[in-house]
Amino acid sequence: MGGSIFGKAFRITTFGESHGKAVGVVVEGVTPGLPLTEADIQIELDRRKPGQSEVATPRQESDTVHILSGVFEGRATGCPIALVIWNADARPEAYRDLAEVFRPGHADYTYHAKYGIRDHRGSGRASGRETAARVAAGAIAKKVLAPAGVTIRAYTLQVGAIGAERVDLDEVDRNPVRCPDPSAAARMVEAIREARDQKDSLGGIVECRATGVPAGLGEPVFDKLDADLAKAMLSLGAVKGIEFGAGFGAVTMRGSEHNDALTAEGFATNHAGGVLGGISTGAELVFRIAVKPTSSIGREQVTVDLDGRERRIAIGGRHDPCICPRIVPVVEAMAALVLVDHLKRQSALRGGA
Amino acid sequence: MGGSIFGKAFRITTFGESHGKAVGVVVEGVTPGLPLTEADIQIELDRRKPGQSEVATPRQESDTVHILSGVFEGRATGCPIALVIWNADARPEAYRDLAEVFRPGHADYTYHAKYGIRDHRGSGRASGRETAARVAAGAIAKKVLAPAGVTIRAYTLQVGAIGAERVDLDEVDRNPVRCPDPSAAARMVEAIREARDQKDSLGGIVECRATGVPAGLGEPVFDKLDADLAKAMLSLGAVKGIEFGAGFGAVTMRGSEHNDALTAEGFATNHAGGVLGGISTGAELVFRIAVKPTSSIGREQVTVDLDGRERRIAIGGRHDPCICPRIVPVVEAMAALVLVDHLKRQSALRGGA
Amino acid sequence: MGGSIFGKAFRITTFGESHGKAVGVVVEGVTPGLPLTEADIQIELDRRKPGQSEVATPRQESDTVHILSGVFEGRATGCPIALVIWNADARPEAYRDLAEVFRPGHADYTYHAKYGIRDHRGSGRASGRETAARVAAGAIAKKVLAPAGVTIRAYTLQVGAIGAERVDLDEVDRNPVRCPDPSAAARMVEAIREARDQKDSLGGIVECRATGVPAGLGEPVFDKLDADLAKAMLSLGAVKGIEFGAGFGAVTMRGSEHNDALTAEGFATNHAGGVLGGISTGAELVFRIAVKPTSSIGREQVTVDLDGRERRIAIGGRHDPCICPRIVPVVEAMAALVLVDHLKRQSALRGGA
Amino acid sequence: MGGSIFGKAFRITTFGESHGKAVGVVVEGVTPGLPLTEADIQIELDRRKPGQSEVATPRQESDTVHILSGVFEGRATGCPIALVIWNADARPEAYRDLAEVFRPGHADYTYHAKYGIRDHRGSGRASGRETAARVAAGAIAKKVLAPAGVTIRAYTLQVGAIGAERVDLDEVDRNPVRCPDPSAAARMVEAIREARDQKDSLGGIVECRATGVPAGLGEPVFDKLDADLAKAMLSLGAVKGIEFGAGFGAVTMRGSEHNDALTAEGFATNHAGGVLGGISTGAELVFRIAVKPTSSIGREQVTVDLDGRERRIAIGGRHDPCICPRIVPVVEAMAALVLVDHLKRQSALRGGA
Repeated sequence: MGGSIFGKAFRITTFGESHGKAVGVVVEGVTPGLPLTEADIQIELDRRKPGQSEVATPRQESDTVHILSGVFEGRATGCPIALVIWNADARPEAYRDLAEVFRPGHADYTYHAKYGIRDHRGSGRASGRETAARVAAGAIAKKVLAPAGVTIRAYTLQVGAIGAERVDLDEVDRNPVRCPDPSAAARMVEAIREARDQKDSLGGIVECRATGVPAGLGEPVFDKLDADLAKAMLSLGAVKGIEFGAGFGAVTMRGSEHNDALTAEGFATNHAGGVLGGISTGAELVFRIAVKPTSSIGREQVTVDLDGRERRIAIGGRHDPCICPRIVPVVEAMAALVLVDHLKRQSALRGGA
Repeated sequence: MGGSIFGKAFRITTFGESHGKAVGVVVEGVTPGLPLTEADIQIELDRRKPGQSEVATPRQESDTVHILSGVFEGRATGCPIALVIWNADARPEAYRDLAEVFRPGHADYTYHAKYGIRDHRGSGRASGRETAARVAAGAIAKKVLAPAGVTIRAYTLQVGAIGAERVDLDEVDRNPVRCPDPSAAARMVEAIREARDQKDSLGGIVECRATGVPAGLGEPVFDKLDADLAKAMLSLGAVKGIEFGAGFGAVTMRGSEHNDALTAEGFATNHAGGVLGGISTGAELVFRIAVKPTSSIGREQVTVDLDGRERRIAIGGRHDPCICPRIVPVVEAMAALVLVDHLKRQSALRGGA
Repeated sequence: MGGSIFGKAFRITTFGESHGKAVGVVVEGVTPGLPLTEADIQIELDRRKPGQSEVATPRQESDTVHILSGVFEGRATGCPIALVIWNADARPEAYRDLAEVFRPGHADYTYHAKYGIRDHRGSGRASGRETAARVAAGAIAKKVLAPAGVTIRAYTLQVGAIGAERVDLDEVDRNPVRCPDPSAAARMVEAIREARDQKDSLGGIVECRATGVPAGLGEPVFDKLDADLAKAMLSLGAVKGIEFGAGFGAVTMRGSEHNDALTAEGFATNHAGGVLGGISTGAELVFRIAVKPTSSIGREQVTVDLDGRERRIAIGGRHDPCICPRIVPVVEAMAALVLVDHLKRQSALRGGA
Repeated sequence: MGGSIFGKAFRITTFGESHGKAVGVVVEGVTPGLPLTEADIQIELDRRKPGQSEVATPRQESDTVHILSGVFEGRATGCPIALVIWNADARPEAYRDLAEVFRPGHADYTYHAKYGIRDHRGSGRASGRETAARVAAGAIAKKVLAPAGVTIRAYTLQVGAIGAERVDLDEVDRNPVRCPDPSAAARMVEAIREARDQKDSLGGIVECRATGVPAGLGEPVFDKLDADLAKAMLSLGAVKGIEFGAGFGAVTMRGSEHNDALTAEGFATNHAGGVLGGISTGAELVFRIAVKPTSSIGREQVTVDLDGRERRIAIGGRHDPCICPRIVPVVEAMAALVLVDHLKRQSALRGGA
């Protein structure tokens, strides 16, 4: 218990607050012998780090990762790998005004209710900054998955009411919103700018696809692959929903329409999104998450302080006006962690005899 | 690992196949001294059992629960409570034809891929019948929640394209689809009948609301309350999506619109659905799940057999043409299990000193 | 939490009280395809069951096991295997006198302190009868280990002050105390008879050896093989100590004496007992446990009742005057469960890539 | 899985190797609001650190702890507390000669067998240095226990054949062997000196007593208090055995002698060592561990290299000729971690309703 451990056969323990000394993670269960360097991890952290474009927060963090243990002469030893990322641009004083007040849409109120004490500096543990640790761990998971032929790609499918009309994965890294449709991407950027100028924020949808996932991953009845992915995604503060394959669209389909026919060449369609009965089918794994509009906005809002008195606040600080672009590498990281965990669980189930 | 254990401080282990000897569950962590009888559990099982209406499967099961341990003189002892429900109307022979073929939309193919062996009798472990064990355990969880003032209610919000237009909880148990809008309920029943007559099936949306949930439940960053609820719901075979509060609707809202203002009287709105930063806010907990159309349909479908040869099958047997009405008590059970688990985890966090 | 689950990759959940309806276990993580019948399990239960000799309790239990799930056509399916053993010779009324009084050396007092409620019938959950479930699960573990070439043998090394002077494994099953030295066995039987006639009881030492354990099992730093075995053995109510290899004898050895030299043919000695740094060495795994004299004795003893008033009691009922002979199969079962768990964990660590 | 996580309701994840960058720990489940500073932790680390006396290793480590997260304005926030201790006096080059050879009595051979790769620098993860992280976490556990009135004291009871003849806790910190009998202490120091001069090492017995432990801690049937303590102690590399209360002495006692009579004033004796049926009795918790003689000795020993060729080695480096004095604070730390875990588990069991 405690809530900062994820996974069973491949397990991570994260720690750290937004404006404390550092964020970090301990990764257990890494296949001994796996080649691993700080650069392998840095490449993923660089995708998540702030300050990369005009549609992201200007906070300046190099997000440099340090491996403290578990790697020897460039290879994982099988012992826990501890990673630390120091908080360089922490400005706790910028949050002093918020110590006494609960920001709407934030975890301020609930942390106070739960713990009776709260680190108010930039959301503390509830900050999106915590996900840097997940991305670092996910980078290791991706390294484990690579030789198994598994590839995971996430991208921004929708921002506000603007949806991508096509998915060209080569386009994703060519625009600041990480949208696979360059035309939609331009309009998304424009919409985010406009919202930011209005001291407001936008929500969106991020889609994730994993190819090369072998059939047979997932452990019914509770630790189903989609159940564990749902938990992984809903554990991200800004995520308010998830759907697999046809998802909520399945509601208005008939069984004869939704069922994916099996043929000698594989599944004819993929309404299931690559999971049946909680186990991977071998088809592409597909899911989408609903990302809420950023809670931190410059507009004046009504709220209460610690004494229950009504207050009006306009949140300064440095925030992303739309979380989608920066959540993309986090979604990939969490998906990778779930997949490696289940790959190793499947090895345990079938092995040992 | 293994996948049949759910929860940490309040923990269940389920077992059983559709056409084996029994399904059952072991419940750990029940508050010692809790008054508990078989009748307390039976009342919930009766809500889930088959054969209750013309829109449900005609399989005849009394689903009588037997307490094997952990209760002494009408009270929980604090030791594990084992519950068994015998399979009375098992007809394994009815499934003999299915031994060699993978039913579309079912877990047949994935169980085969995962385990290399499959109990083909009525879906075996992948059958919805497994959820009887969850409902039995959930009945105990509800008993734990009752004195804490927590009430959980689920209902069918939509069947196919037909949505409830109002929510009157008193109506839910007055119609066979468990819809809180009697007018919509009548049209839903008609639609299900029609689909059944066409040897087809319908999907739907089930909504769940929990009132009385104290603020402070949920353990960031991974074991968030919504994350654990998402896992619980996606662990149900027919569920393909979940959303909390405004859910996917948040995508097109702005931050200024989506943020719930705090007032001296509490939250002014509840777009968050009762969870912020993964911790309960004290407001009503609200989520919706997407239920796919039943996979088992009488229509002829294309599939393959164990040797990869194309086959055509029409599934006989006894199936629900729409799963929504019968999943309602299961959703409540799973929500109750998650809430008790987190109530007890909160006791652990704050206690002991 | 809850305490009735053991293992991670191969995991059991037990339930049941001495004089309730049944004891049982759910076993998760069994290799799919493993041949398994009730007879495979019964053979181990028969070794543990009461009433087998004059030095054991006369309670009559057939201890017949029933497989409720997870086995199909004689093979494990990979889904949870539930086993139930009904309590046939339960005589709860025989314990009515004990409802108000705490038996010395028993868990009566501590269960009362922990739970505030107590099933006083024959020790309830604290009864040695609970170990029938462990033996049943251990029988499955032994089946998993057999093809891997692992053999586990436990035996009574000492009863009171009488120690075996040689270890001939063929002798173990030829005498009622399960001693590998027939000459010592005869004296042990005599000593137990004498203690029983004096309404008293005896303690002893049970030794366990596992051969064929591959090098590399155990997960530092906490889930070391010896740490998990120690937990497994101390989880038996009558066990008060454990030692590996030279054990407490190592205290008076020097490093130069205790260190096992490695040679081209393997370890020259085995003072380590087959574990170094918490990982199996490939040498024979050897440990001994201290078994306390049975708490239930016919002699009059001083104690207190629920109100703290002094009382004198002489315990009737049917008890083993020395627990060693009947704990032997339980020790083997627990050792098998730990070894399979670690075999599968090792598969997870090295696999999946 | 992975093996570096300990505890459930109060949970630690450790990392780090002897001659890597750092050792550290993440502590979860700390009661929010607990006053905590680095000095609180440092005081315990200083008791364990090397170089304190002539009978300990001369390795120079300040073992300064750094809190990276989970503490805000001098109080625990309820979020994970990460602690790091940098390795200052790491001399990896000193171990270059050992890369190709397995030291007798060490984990070299088993790590190689398990992982196929080994960090040979000063035993890597298998080094006793890893326990600094445990002591740091244990210092927090002690802070949680203090207001509950629980006190834990460990001490050296025996070194080689020299045993303490009386237990005066005030004496423990007045001599370098941490023996509660000053006369025996002097002889122990002499014996250790002599062994060191002979390039050899000594074993010993460490006893631990916890007072103020409330009755009711421990979770049958597997997570018994003594079972979890046994696991905790056997997870220390040098420990080869454990016994509670009368321990192995119970073997030659009769039931009438071993049973502790209950009186209106409490237990008349404490042969049980404070645990009955795996639950604390409220009496003093007492256990002893067998500590093997240090494996690293200067004497020439026979062993093999990676290719199985016989080699002779004399181990240089800086080692404790007897581990007992320095294991004392580690034993206390592990006992504290187990007790807090069970205090919080008990809160969960009884709470939430």
